[in-house]
Order: sequence, then C-alpha cells, then structure tokens
Amino acid sequence: MPEHRVAVVGAGGFGGALCARLVHRHPSLELTALTARSDAGRRHDEVHPRYRVPLALEEFDADAIAERADSALVAYPHKAAALAVRELRERGLRVVDLSADFRLDQARYEHWYQPHEAPELLDESVYGLPELHREEIAEAGLVAGPGCNSTAALLALLPLAGRIEEAAVDIKAGVSGAGREATEETHFVSVVDNVNAYKVEGHRHTAELEQELPGIHFSFVAHLLPIDQGILASCYARPTEPITAAEVQELYVEAYRREPFVDVVDRPPRTREVRDTNRATVQATVVNDRVLAFCAIDNLWKGAAGQAVQDLNLMLGLPEREGLE
Amino acid sequence: MPEHRVAVVGAGGFGGALCARLVHRHPSLELTALTARSDAGRRHDEVHPRYRVPLALEEFDADAIAERADSALVAYPHKAAALAVRELRERGLRVVDLSADFRLDQARYEHWYQPHEAPELLDESVYGLPELHREEIAEAGLVAGPGCNSTAALLALLPLAGRIEEAAVDIKAGVSGAGREATEETHFVSVVDNVNAYKVEGHRHTAELEQELPGIHFSFVAHLLPIDQGILASCYARPTEPITAAEVQELYVEAYRREPFVDVVDRPPRTREVRDTNRATVQATVVNDRVLAFCAIDNLWKGAAGQAVQDLNLMLGLPEREGLE
Amino acid sequence: MPEHRVAVVGAGGFGGALCARLVHRHPSLELTALTARSDAGRRHDEVHPRYRVPLALEEFDADAIAERADSALVAYPHKAAALAVRELRERGLRVVDLSADFRLDQARYEHWYQPHEAPELLDESVYGLPELHREEIAEAGLVAGPGCNSTAALLALLPLAGRIEEAAVDIKAGVSGAGREATEETHFVSVVDNVNAYKVEGHRHTAELEQELPGIHFSFVAHLLPIDQGILASCYARPTEPITAAEVQELYVEAYRREPFVDVVDRPPRTREVRDTNRATVQATVVNDRVLAFCAIDNLWKGAAGQAVQDLNLMLGLPEREGLE
Amino acid sequence: MPEHRVAVVGAGGFGGALCARLVHRHPSLELTALTARSDAGRRHDEVHPRYRVPLALEEFDADAIAERADSALVAYPHKAAALAVRELRERGLRVVDLSADFRLDQARYEHWYQPHEAPELLDESVYGLPELHREEIAEAGLVAGPGCNSTAALLALLPLAGRIEEAAVDIKAGVSGAGREATEETHFVSVVDNVNAYKVEGHRHTAELEQELPGIHFSFVAHLLPIDQGILASCYARPTEPITAAEVQELYVEAYRREPFVDVVDRPPRTREVRDTNRATVQATVVNDRVLAFCAIDNLWKGAAGQAVQDLNLMLGLPEREGLE
Repeated sequence: MPEHRVAVVGAGGFGGALCARLVHRHPSLELTALTARSDAGRRHDEVHPRYRVPLALEEFDADAIAERADSALVAYPHKAAALAVRELRERGLRVVDLSADFRLDQARYEHWYQPHEAPELLDESVYGLPELHREEIAEAGLVAGPGCNSTAALLALLPLAGRIEEAAVDIKAGVSGAGREATEETHFVSVVDNVNAYKVEGHRHTAELEQELPGIHFSFVAHLLPIDQGILASCYARPTEPITAAEVQELYVEAYRREPFVDVVDRPPRTREVRDTNRATVQATVVNDRVLAFCAIDNLWKGAAGQAVQDLNLMLGLPEREGLE
Repeated sequence: MPEHRVAVVGAGGFGGALCARLVHRHPSLELTALTARSDAGRRHDEVHPRYRVPLALEEFDADAIAERADSALVAYPHKAAALAVRELRERGLRVVDLSADFRLDQARYEHWYQPHEAPELLDESVYGLPELHREEIAEAGLVAGPGCNSTAALLALLPLAGRIEEAAVDIKAGVSGAGREATEETHFVSVVDNVNAYKVEGHRHTAELEQELPGIHFSFVAHLLPIDQGILASCYARPTEPITAAEVQELYVEAYRREPFVDVVDRPPRTREVRDTNRATVQATVVNDRVLAFCAIDNLWKGAAGQAVQDLNLMLGLPEREGLE
Repeated sequence: MPEHRVAVVGAGGFGGALCARLVHRHPSLELTALTARSDAGRRHDEVHPRYRVPLALEEFDADAIAERADSALVAYPHKAAALAVRELRERGLRVVDLSADFRLDQARYEHWYQPHEAPELLDESVYGLPELHREEIAEAGLVAGPGCNSTAALLALLPLAGRIEEAAVDIKAGVSGAGREATEETHFVSVVDNVNAYKVEGHRHTAELEQELPGIHFSFVAHLLPIDQGILASCYARPTEPITAAEVQELYVEAYRREPFVDVVDRPPRTREVRDTNRATVQATVVNDRVLAFCAIDNLWKGAAGQAVQDLNLMLGLPEREGLE
Repeated sequence: MPEHRVAVVGAGGFGGALCARLVHRHPSLELTALTARSDAGRRHDEVHPRYRVPLALEEFDADAIAERADSALVAYPHKAAALAVRELRERGLRVVDLSADFRLDQARYEHWYQPHEAPELLDESVYGLPELHREEIAEAGLVAGPGCNSTAALLALLPLAGRIEEAAVDIKAGVSGAGREATEETHFVSVVDNVNAYKVEGHRHTAELEQELPGIHFSFVAHLLPIDQGILASCYARPTEPITAAEVQELYVEAYRREPFVDVVDRPPRTREVRDTNRATVQATVVNDRVLAFCAIDNLWKGAAGQAVQDLNLMLGLPEREGLE
C-alpha cells in the first residue's frame, strides 16, 4: 500500500504528463491530485492515452492539494512555477520543481530570465542532479530538477571537473523538449527530414553549467532533430594538462561506479537505447589531445520526470530506483 | 545539342546514381557511358527509379569508355577509384573522382589509408572545392571531389582562415552518406528514433581539413541522424584575437558575395532548405568569445554529385551553374 | 520570354506555395501577383525558403490582380475560394481553383458542405483531371482542381469504369495534406512513429468519386502517415464479371498509354519515387477474384499544384508537360 | 521466486529478442536458456542493448535445453521452427511457437508453404489467439502464435463473425515486422519518406483468416510504413444483412468486455498508443452500409512476443496479464 501521497501540478505538458504516470505506477507513491492549466476538465488518459492514467485533470488549488498530498512535482513554465511552488511550500509540502526557477542563484537567474517571483526560496533549494548533490537532495524540502540539456551535458562532463578549461557542448534533442504547444517549429513538416540549431545564444544553459561546473569556459548550441524523445550531448573539451584516453576512461568508470542510472560504455551512446528509461549512457575518450565525451538520455525521463521521481525517492527515503525500472 | 560526352563510372551507389541523373539532364552534357559493379546488367531506373535515367548499367571497360566519352565522373570506393582513374587518365579523359584517393597529399593519404595505387597522379590532382580552388579546377585534368563532411566544414570555416587557432567540428549527417550497402547500421530500425556518434576517431576527415585550412587544431565527430539526405556542420572556433559578431558576419558576406551556391543567412541553416539542391546555407556569429559557424548542404549534391558537376562545368568552360538549378 | 501573366492567390499554404514556385520557374508563365492571407507582408522565400521565390506576399485585391494577370491559380480554403474566384472571373481571368468549391455539382456540394457562395459559376466549371476531361479543360475558363485523395483514387480506378460495382479506397497520406496550420494533430510528436485513420466518415471524398465514376459503391478512409508529402491509394474492387490479372493489366496499359504523367508499373508503386514530381505510378492486378489497384502521387504536385499547372497549360494551349519536368 | 523455467529459442531476431526480455522480467518465469543462430556467442544485451538482458546467446541443443527448462518460446523462421519444436516436444517441454508452422491445418500449410516438417504435431497444436481459443490454449502442450497481421485483422473482425460475407483487410505495418535482416527493403533510405504495398499476393495471410473466420471472402494487402513497431489493420466489410453503427458498436463492446488486452474505443486507434504494450485498440462503425473496423497493435508485443507470453501464462495457469503490464 502506497505510503506517500503525491500531487502532480501541470500534467498537461509532456514532462508533467510523464510525472503523473510515474507516480501513478510507483509502488510507494499514491497520485492523489493532478492539475493542468489549459487541459483542466479533461482526463489524463484522453490527453495522453499511452500513459493510461485514468484520472481527471483539475484546476490548481493549493489548499485542496495540501489536504490530499504531502509532496508535489511541479511542471509549470518558469515564473508560473515559482508562484505555485511558494504556495505549496507555505503549506508544508515537499516539492520537486521541473522549471528553471530554482536552478540558478538569484544573480544568474535575474540576469538571464527576469526578477524572481519567490527569491526567499532560493536559499533552501537544491540542484536536483543526484550524481552531484545526492546528500543535499535527501535533506531538502525543495529540489530544482535540472534542465534536460544540462543533465546530459553535466553527466558527460562531471568526471572531468578540475581537469578541463574549456568545453563546447553540442546538444542534439528530440522535439518533445520543445514542448507540447503546436507551432510552426513543432509542425511535422518543419521537423521531418531536417536538422537545425535552435538555441544559438544558449546563455540560459551555459549559466546552469557554469554554476555546477565552475572554472570552465562553455560554448553551447542545441539542435532540433526529427525524433520525439532523446538527447545526445557531444562535448569537445580542452584539458588543462595532457591526459590519455585510458586515464579518462578510468576517471569515468570510477566516477559512476555506484550510480544506479549511469552506464559508462566503450562505444558511442545511442538515444534509442535509453528511450523510455531513466538511464544515461556515457562514453569518453581522447582524440588529438582533446577529450570527447558523449551522453545519451531520454529528455522526458532522466531529463525531466524520471529524474524528478528519483529526487523524490531520495527526499522520502525510498530506494532510489523504485518506480523507475 | 550536348557538346560534351561524359561517362559516369560507379553509378550503383547513391553518389554515382545522382551523377548519372545530373549528367543526363544537363543541357551541355551527354551521358554516353554508365557503369556499375554489383548492379551491372540492370537498368539505372530500375535501381534508382526516382532518377528516371532510362539507361543500362554496364561493366567497367576503359577502352569502351574512352571511345564514347571525353570526361568521366568516377564514384568508386577508395583504392578501386585510383585504379579506374589511372586507366581513364591514360586514355586522355578529364576526370572528377568522388573518392578520397586524390584529395590528400601522399604522406597524409598513406598515413590514414594505405599505400596509394596511383601516386603519380597526385601531383596533377586538384582539390575540387570551387570556393577555394576555382582557377586550378578550371585548368585541371583530374579533380578530387571533397568529402561531404569536409565540404560542409570547410564552407562553414573558410572565411575564418588565419583568424582562428582551434575548431571543434560537429557533423550531423543523413544515412545516405553511409552508402547503399544494407547493414545493421543502415537498417531502418537501427536508425529511426535515434542519434549517435559514428566516427569518433575522425582522423581521415581532420586530415582533409588540416590540409585545406592549415594552422588550425581540429576536433571532429560525425553523427548519424534519422534523415536520408543532408549534412549540418556545427563549428565551435576559438579566435586568435577577439572578434565581434558583426565583424564575423562581414567576413562571411564578403567571402561568399560572388559564390553562386553559397548563401550567407542570419538564422540557423536547415538541411531541409538545401535538400536536392547544390546550395549551401551558412551562418556565423560570436557568442561568449567563440565563433559559432554552421553550414547546411545536401550530402549527395554539394557534398558529392552536384559539386562534381560544378567542377566539371569549370573544367569544360561551361557556366558554373549549368545543369544544377 | 514568358507569354502569360499569372497570379497565385493564397500562397501561404503548402499547395499555394508550390503553385508560386511552379509558375515562377515555368518558361512560358510569368508570376505577376502573389497573395496570402495570414502571411501578407512577408516574403515567399522567408515563409517557404526551399522554394526560393524572391517575391513579397500581398493582400488579395481583385482589381490589382486583374491589372497584372490574365490567369490565376487560387489556393484558398473552400468558401473563401468561391468568393475570390467570382471576383477574378468577373474581371475576365482564367482560373484554376484548388479548393473543393467547384468540384461537385450544386446538390452534392450543398449536401456535404454548405450553401454555395457562387453557384452561378458551377455550370462553367470543369473537373480538372486531365486524364478524364482533357478536352473540356482546354476550353474552360474555370477549372476545379481535384482533391489530392480523389486524384490518387481516380487514377487507380479509371480504367475499371463500367467493370466494377464496388470499391474500398484506403488512402495513406502525408501530413502536408492536412495543411500548414499547427495543431495537436500536426505536431511532430503526434505524427511520428504512428499511423491512424483520420477521415472515417469520408462522405466528401466519396461524393467526388461517385460523381466522376458513377455506378460504383464506394467506401473510403484516409489515414495519416509519418511522411510529409505523398499519397498512396490502395483500392479493393469487386468486378461485375470475372476478369483476369492479364486483362486488367491490358486495360491499364491501354488507358494510360498516351498519358504524359501516368506510368503503369508491374510492382507496387512507392510514394518516394514520385516525390516532388507530377507523376503518378499505377499498378493493378487480380487476386482471389478481386481487383487490387494502387496509385502513388505527390499530394502537393499531381494532387494539387502540379496538376493545377497541368490544367493551366491545357487552358493556355501550352505543351502539357511544360514547367513540370 | 520464479516458479517456471523457460527457454527462448531464436532470440537474435526482433520477436525472439523481446521474448527473452519479457521472460527475463516476468515475476513467475525464469529465463534458463537462450539461443540464437547467427548471433550465438554474443550477449543478448550487446545485440539488443535496450532490452538489458545480461545473458549469453547459445547454440541450439535440445538436450541441454530440456535439462534446464520446462517450457520454451520458439522464434525461428518457418520450417526451422518445426524441427526445433519437434525436438522440444519429444523432450516434454510445453512450447509456444511464433512461426507459421503450426498455425494452419496441413492442407492449407502445404498449399501455401511446403511439405510440413513435423505434421504429426499439427493435431495437438492450438491457434494461440486467446480472444478466440482461451480454453484450448490453457490445455495445450503446443500453441502456435498467430501472425502479427492476422492478430490485428482478427481482433478487428472477430465480433462480426457470422454477420459479414466479405472483407478487405488493409494492413499498415512497421519495419520490424520485416525482420532484422539488412536488405535493400529494410535500408533506412528505402523506407523513410515512403509507403508501398509489399505483400500483394497475400495468400498466406488470407489462409490464416479463412481458417479462423470461415465463410468470409477475404482480400488482403500489407503495406510497409516508415515506423519501426506497430500495425494498423483497416477492414472494409460487407454485412450479410443491414446493420447500424450502434448495433456494431454494441457487438464489439460485448465481445471484448472481459478481454484484458483489448480496448474498444470510439475514435480511430493509433499505433502510437499501443507501442511497447500488449494492448489492442479497436474501433468499428458503419458508413454507407459497410462496416469499417480498425485495430492497432504493437507487432512485436500483441503480434508476437507479448501474445506468446500471454499464451504461456494461460498454459501454466498463471494470471493472464502477469509480466505484461
């Protein structure tokens, strides 16, 4: 019988929809509240039939949620997220927020976004990458789920911390990362049989990388691919001192030896092999004196909803893999 | 009435098949001989119905070709190409070779490939990128068509010659670049809904870049995308001295002002917009002190057959765009 | 030098955009006016870069068009189309209309659509399938371009007229047929890795088939595929009297012997082989006493813009293939 | 702790590979033997990384299998399957065979295939569609898994048994149904951006339908789509007596009310919604006096491996859904 009552706020979009499914099927969690903004009034399994969550989507009401749930996953756009998170925190819920609102310190956030809507919460929020902050996450009341692109880039580069001075991060991402909104950019005819860069001025992403991997000069470009789910990060890094491929591989194996969701492989990672899983596959080598590092994840899982549930498992003292296999 | 008689050697593969089509429809060229290795005996329009070339594919016979043609486009794999090119050159034909055999100087070739089969021809061969060697191509008897990945990378970076010291080249390529052979890698189920690096040790490609853009340290990785035609090169370059986005854009506009097939654009190039054309779209900017440069081409056109016909036009004194619009 | 001045009305959508391109490159036509509704003020090559038509999209103004053009291709949605066509016909222009407004007789139209906006023009309009009405088209002032699904179905079945009593028409169609509007249905994530029926109540389509091939009972379902362009019609027909595969093939070869754009083939038609062409490939055979007939076209070419230009060529006395190869 | 020891024979192909995964993760089954023909010696998770079955693929040896397993799923091509099944049955194993070898009675089999390799087993074999033969399956020692196309067609039409006299079955199928072999037909460039019929002479499939739904005249064509997994069956059926849409829908709801894996829906089924599940979604209606019936399944799950495990659950007295959710 599930021990923990969980709300999913913002289950209309792709990330929130999967949060609902993962909580719904989780053996120790009970999905007790489910909200959406534009889809309120519809059923989840009507909007997202493949997830088979037979529950209605409601309007957001913090009091109603607080009566029914002890924790919440919030999947609103930034700015709206901060306001919802404040209301839930004021009512005592543990929260994992999937937006950008609590990922950056205030200076970085306000430089690249806008004035923060709930700055008083920034001190308590923890950047929710378990491979980097597992222990703080376990103690936190508010966790900021990392961005999907940043998750892939950080997992590709974490073992190199302190050993590289510059990295170019080339992100190849599926369309679900661009959201559920129907636009000229997400129209099938625009996407199929095409690839293009779409975030050339990637300051919001480099801010996240610079904060979590300080001391490295980052370049960052995201590209849109004709796939629905999946991210591949390809990183080209200049080491501070010469390093061999064998040394690099040893670093990676060591860094991820006990990680439940990161596999170090010795051939190029494929997005297909991690689809619909919370896993990351990572490869690193050295060619022509530069470190080449790759990481494949499913942007909706390890890049969003899966990682949010992994964070919640840690916050609730549950086994980290539970509900994610 | 066509003035020039042209043979296409190796028309079974994707690149050679398109050569045949382009020659066949070219107003000043006549397709007088057409060969293939494993498909000899079949008709071209049976093997490649969309190209509608109603001619038979024959076995290779240099004497028979020399009787019927004055020029040849050769689309064999490397090593086989060198031998065929020698036979055709001995009989006096002008040749554009699409393989790697005549792209590199002997030292580079034998370091990354194998002993050269026709080294005596290397002195006369010209690297067939018109944007870099237009005048030598016009005088040449043997032109080496650049690799498709190198074409995209060079067009992305040429205007930066002398101004950058290092570049990471991230290639995103369609499956036709991997050839017509049916393998586990080209099986639809392996490719769809996936992206992965596939040439992590890209020495053969960096050799081509280093030769044509000397003095720059290159990193290079090619990735396979679920599209059939198209290449996007994304380049991350470190300038030797600080440079602004406006200066970079000015350099590009100036460099390509008179190029018939290169368009400098101010938004990200899309492979879809150059599909089935000989065009390249190029964008360059500066973000966070690094030059970001992008180039989209169709790998079968500007990356292979289209560029070969462009080269042949130059060699024969025809208008450079003829047959390519 | 082009002899005929042509306007394209409604060049924002996929069909009208291609009309503009085909007129623009046509050796005997001059594109003298170009309008769009929601995209007015933008350039055509900004909205549809791959078509490279360097002209501005204007608001519709019948007087201005009549000053500059003698003929028009109209690619508006139905109902809006009827009103625009009336204005252009009143000013003496020859018109090919791509909407449904002039395809059906008044009774059929008003039964399946709504009251007709310009019923006085129905008498003069000709159903624009050259394979069925070539001579009337050549004499007409107003031609109704057939629907893309109907074009494929009719070309698959025309040679069987009088010999079958019932046919099930299963249409498999690319997304561009659903239009350029961004909706949940055209979002990449909805379309990729999926197939579904989407016009189960296909009365509007069977009305068109019943009018042009009277005396046959039709079933009709259209399905949406993860391709951008292309239609395959698969037809299952019950003959009124027993017929052999050889007899059926003879009928098809005979029927299409002189057709410039229809190829009868003896293996299954592929949408890929007709992509970006005005061609149709057709196969018919008999299995288990039923005629199986297939037709592949590009919905934007033979199913819309290409066929409209073919019609216009006939109306203007130009060679039927001109500008379409 | 798993109660039943199961072998998977032929785990190199797509269907067998998924059998291995489903048995491996099944709470009441233990995967104790795993064989493949051309991939013997490799590990399963090297050949099919996304399935994460960390076991070696061995050569087939009936004695070794019989020592370790009490049941087997056999996923060999037909003819080879019959010989392997005989060896396993002789050693007392319960078998579900995924090939065509035990689906048809001897006369039908030998008419459309070749002389049967193990005809003495045909009497005991049961056609493994639980929705039609649940009780016989539970008693059987040998079950023949239905073909993927037949599964979709039968689930679309079963509730109409006795009420229709003719049906055209139009199958739209993903590439994994064509097998793992790399051929010109399965090359990415052949499949993408294309649709074509590929089994126009579908006698082997109609034989299966005629046997299981006697008294109906069938037409059948399978088409290859650019998707990897999924089948949509679209059926056009002529009723023996007039019937309304409401009556048809009532029939379907009634027929499938208690089926654990069949959902009757009132909008068109989508292959995407059943991907990677053992579910079938079915819709039926009446338009223009004909019944239109649709069924979507995942060809590797309900069309092959999932249904095989469903059969095995029945044979072993396990809950029918176990290991399949």
